[in-house]
Amino acid sequence: MTASIEKRPNEPQRVIIETVSPTVDDGRFPAKAIDGETIRVRADIFADGHDHLSALVLHRAPGEKTWSEIPMRPLTNDRWEAAVGIKGLGPHVFTLAAWADHFKTWRADLRKRLDAGQDITVDLQIGADLLRQAASRAGKKDAAALRSWASKLKTGKSGFTREQADLALSEEINEVMTRCPERANETRGPREYQIWAEPELARFGAWYELFPRSLGEKGRHGTFRDVEAHLPRVADMGFDVLYLPPIHPVGQAFRKGANNSTTAKPGEPGSPWGIGGKEGGHTAVHPELGTLEDFRRLVKKARRDHKIEIALDIAFQCSPDHPWVREHPDWFIHRPDGSIQYAENPPKKYQDIYPLNFESKEWKSLWRELRDVFLYWIKQGVTVFRVDNPHTKALPFWEWAIGEIKAKHPEIIFLSEAFTRPRILHYLAKAGFTQSYNYFPWRNTKEELTEFMEGLAKEPVRHYLRPNLWPNTPDILPQYLQYGGRPAFMIRGLLAATLGASYGIYGPAFELCVNDPREPGSEEYLYSEKYEIKDWNLDAPGNLTDFIKRLNRIRKENPALRTNDTLAFHPTDNREILAYSKRTDDGSNVLLMVVNLDPHHTQSGWVDIDFNRLGVNVADTYQVHELLSGARYLWQGSRNYVELDPSFSPAHVFRLRSRVRKENDFDYFM
Amino acid sequence: MTASIEKRPNEPQRVIIETVSPTVDDGRFPAKAIDGETIRVRADIFADGHDHLSALVLHRAPGEKTWSEIPMRPLTNDRWEAAVGIKGLGPHVFTLAAWADHFKTWRADLRKRLDAGQDITVDLQIGADLLRQAASRAGKKDAAALRSWASKLKTGKSGFTREQADLALSEEINEVMTRCPERANETRGPREYQIWAEPELARFGAWYELFPRSLGEKGRHGTFRDVEAHLPRVADMGFDVLYLPPIHPVGQAFRKGANNSTTAKPGEPGSPWGIGGKEGGHTAVHPELGTLEDFRRLVKKARRDHKIEIALDIAFQCSPDHPWVREHPDWFIHRPDGSIQYAENPPKKYQDIYPLNFESKEWKSLWRELRDVFLYWIKQGVTVFRVDNPHTKALPFWEWAIGEIKAKHPEIIFLSEAFTRPRILHYLAKAGFTQSYNYFPWRNTKEELTEFMEGLAKEPVRHYLRPNLWPNTPDILPQYLQYGGRPAFMIRGLLAATLGASYGIYGPAFELCVNDPREPGSEEYLYSEKYEIKDWNLDAPGNLTDFIKRLNRIRKENPALRTNDTLAFHPTDNREILAYSKRTDDGSNVLLMVVNLDPHHTQSGWVDIDFNRLGVNVADTYQVHELLSGARYLWQGSRNYVELDPSFSPAHVFRLRSRVRKENDFDYFM
Repeated sequence: MTASIEKRPNEPQRVIIETVSPTVDDGRFPAKAIDGETIRVRADIFADGHDHLSALVLHRAPGEKTWSEIPMRPLTNDRWEAAVGIKGLGPHVFTLAAWADHFKTWRADLRKRLDAGQDITVDLQIGADLLRQAASRAGKKDAAALRSWASKLKTGKSGFTREQADLALSEEINEVMTRCPERANETRGPREYQIWAEPELARFGAWYELFPRSLGEKGRHGTFRDVEAHLPRVADMGFDVLYLPPIHPVGQAFRKGANNSTTAKPGEPGSPWGIGGKEGGHTAVHPELGTLEDFRRLVKKARRDHKIEIALDIAFQCSPDHPWVREHPDWFIHRPDGSIQYAENPPKKYQDIYPLNFESKEWKSLWRELRDVFLYWIKQGVTVFRVDNPHTKALPFWEWAIGEIKAKHPEIIFLSEAFTRPRILHYLAKAGFTQSYNYFPWRNTKEELTEFMEGLAKEPVRHYLRPNLWPNTPDILPQYLQYGGRPAFMIRGLLAATLGASYGIYGPAFELCVNDPREPGSEEYLYSEKYEIKDWNLDAPGNLTDFIKRLNRIRKENPALRTNDTLAFHPTDNREILAYSKRTDDGSNVLLMVVNLDPHHTQSGWVDIDFNRLGVNVADTYQVHELLSGARYLWQGSRNYVELDPSFSPAHVFRLRSRVRKENDFDYFM
Repeated sequence: MTASIEKRPNEPQRVIIETVSPTVDDGRFPAKAIDGETIRVRADIFADGHDHLSALVLHRAPGEKTWSEIPMRPLTNDRWEAAVGIKGLGPHVFTLAAWADHFKTWRADLRKRLDAGQDITVDLQIGADLLRQAASRAGKKDAAALRSWASKLKTGKSGFTREQADLALSEEINEVMTRCPERANETRGPREYQIWAEPELARFGAWYELFPRSLGEKGRHGTFRDVEAHLPRVADMGFDVLYLPPIHPVGQAFRKGANNSTTAKPGEPGSPWGIGGKEGGHTAVHPELGTLEDFRRLVKKARRDHKIEIALDIAFQCSPDHPWVREHPDWFIHRPDGSIQYAENPPKKYQDIYPLNFESKEWKSLWRELRDVFLYWIKQGVTVFRVDNPHTKALPFWEWAIGEIKAKHPEIIFLSEAFTRPRILHYLAKAGFTQSYNYFPWRNTKEELTEFMEGLAKEPVRHYLRPNLWPNTPDILPQYLQYGGRPAFMIRGLLAATLGASYGIYGPAFELCVNDPREPGSEEYLYSEKYEIKDWNLDAPGNLTDFIKRLNRIRKENPALRTNDTLAFHPTDNREILAYSKRTDDGSNVLLMVVNLDPHHTQSGWVDIDFNRLGVNVADTYQVHELLSGARYLWQGSRNYVELDPSFSPAHVFRLRSRVRKENDFDYFM
């Protein structure tokens, strides 16, 4: 386990570096960061004895060949920290260096000896020796200064002088010595760690999912041109990403009919996830949506005119009509009766879908082809992918494919639809997915929400898994929405938009509060849009368009909501009232959300703000500015009263405005 | 970070293995175990999709060249487990293997299809193919059987028969198929992990420290022969290890006098930690203690006649008179005035001690010499070392030296006297120390003790750090003992002996309840035995010899106390009453300790036994057998009353005796 004495360097290393953060599984996977942010690198750094230590973070941004050195400072209990600026998309690398710093030790000891009135004659000579040794490592100017100081520290028969003591402890010498430390016996490592820097949209974004084919007028199959026409509404609501279900040709064989019927009637459009027909597969466009050129135009226009990214849904599964079935039979499982194995979860059968066989002898050509599907759409301008059921494809494939793609295109965002078991959901995030769907749709109570979000905030989870919170999807109409009416949609929308720096809704079903399940107990929509074209009345009374617009505006105007890192929950005395805060690092933007989780009844109670968790210490009396209504209240101390009528507005989003207590003084106004 | 497609094996791997236990820092350090114990190896094991998996632990005991395979079983949430028997001292190695098991999946699916009344004709042919493929991997006999079964599964035009379905699902086929699984695409790893197996004394032992020189009659300098004569008393008290302060020649230069005076009067013996004189250094014996031959005789006799190991104190520091000072001047720091740097913690000076310089250019010869000190004493029969202040010697040295020594002598036990900062204390344990002194002397309240012991029970700490609990040492007379009188000594002794599988006392000071500090606020003993010869009156009234004897007998008779792994705390409604339990793995020995932490007052209250934490579910009414007094009580349910008068007996050690509820039945008597 440990190197033999012969294999060690000639200079003995004494410093230990351990428990480095941010890291994921001891460097097996990269940690995630946002281009432009400042991260805190931390490690336990210590050595035997009482020597003072010095430590550095060595950091290399993408494309750089040499290390930048960032000095670390000690916190408590041998933990050290440095703030490292992350600039540039892609893989950053860092490691650490630390050594016993004899000059630092000597200087600190000298002060103690002087304070105790001891004779420091010999100590000054030791110091002079340290300065002379440093001179041999220093630049020309520093070297001259060091040699001159060293000679000034030379003591005579009569011992040392006060001037010599002052010089020895001078800040001047200390500064020069800090520039040319003796690092011969420094410890490096323990290894090099990767940090993947991604664009801010990787962390902060509001997503809107819609079915293009429902945008046609009066039942006509909608097209990319219809989506283009719809962009202003999506932009006006404040969304950053417009996510489209698969846009590929829909298969005919075993096509699904309305309400998931196993046989489609003539003219029924089928499910967009039944991918592949005579018109092509994963790199083709469904003819009824328009042309590839239309699609490229949509992508360009959305970005240029509305700052919206178009997200594509990549679902690696094939209709029996998919070209791969003929061209690459080896990618599928063949049964003894000559048929191809369709998807199953016995006793359930899904004859409209052939899964790909990741244990195929031809797995290498399969992996390459699947990677190339992404590269194809990247070439068409797409930068955001939502990946369907990644947990039913070989997990090592994802690490390889995302790695290959991000090496050339570090700006690409992959959202993992891993509604599966926790270990697999987490592994996909480690393996490279930028963001992850998660269990938010089924976390409803105060206890559930708190435990869920706090679980995501733990180390190392926070370093690899970015949750994207969806109150609904075309596959998931949670019971809470089925029974809670319009207030339930408001509550879940607000929770998603303020608990999660990234969130999304499946619309217009969401803003129209569509809540009929296929049957009681089911989470499928009745007459789901997955199997038929809808004609939505976007102006239906009671719609939440304005509410969502307000939520997204609050998100954009309050930088506190751009991260989950500062999320903190606060006690309330009512189990239906959830209180939580977010803030910016500098404390200049602090929000407190207070949500009535009960969509049926007015709830009231006392909120106990935990100022430690809040991260700022406000004045005794402070203003809370309610950003949904615009109302302002004066609050006092930590305990304040709220009353929330869900039929009116089930939540408060307070911005705290106050002179802020910093150290022992109030020094600015939020 | 991930292998390119060209460098991957031809068989695609789909299974992920993560979060392996027991491991320390992802395999950087070995985990610790006891020779003869059964450990639980656990890992998260999962793959994409719905395939059933199979997993093995691959284990290699010391000296073995091939893996033993131990099947794992799934727990919940993709966690798997296997019980692995650890036989043989020294480094065991393990890793894991797991694969998607297509036969298992096929068999489970077949049952579901049958239950749903589906046609399984084609599925039987798929199964037959699996059997035929397995035959090519199987032994001769199994292969024949598999081929015969495969042919019996062949279906005709009229579909399958009930007999064929039964055969396909038969336990017979399942057993044979389990013997020859298809492992071509198995995942191995993620790496090989070490487990160091040590003798049981590494985990479970009662230590007794004494100064041999105080065993002479009427102030005469005691000798190894006197220790020999004292062995029956130590054995009768029930101790397993007799630990002696350094036995080497004591230096004359700057020798310490009584009560830590900086100048010794003529005839004063000095501190045993002021090591080295004209008679020799770390491999010599202090002449006043006797000869090397006497020492070897003591070691042999203690082991043979009393089952006691003699532990030596190894303190790597030198009196100015130590031979190394002349022979290896390079191992020390030389000051500009020609003197050698003595130990300091400015402004404090310790002129009687020269520290070794681990940054010496000659560090390799220094490391070798220090290792050889251990090897020398091992040759004299010593198997247990207590290492003085290991945190003031280069930490990498310990990992190297202990590794070198244990490679040849895996039975050796090293106790680390690392009363230092947490990270260093822990690192020394990871680096190889068998056991560690720790903060127990300063953990007094219910909250402190609970938090402290629970911190040690966490993963991965429990895998590398074995606490040895000492209520006192020659350096530490805690305030609790200074002010709590005899009851305080009983309380701390009982806590040490029952919270810790390993514990020790510095006697006779402990059993005689010696509690005068050098001055108020100091933890040093007044007229400490470190600097003078004591004449103890072992029969002094109020001595705790019988109490300690009883504690050690309870420890020996109750295997529950041999480990800390099952330690569980239970609520009480009195903050001065601490309740905790330990049990054997099979639940046949269950102890509940209830301790009054207040040495001054009688305390009473209700103990709430948490049966989940206790690990057994007893009958409604059960007997508790108080092992200190022999009294027996009938208790009922989880909530029971206790009253503890510290002047009489400050604690109960209950053995629970009951018919035990196992699953839904009572099936044995504890």
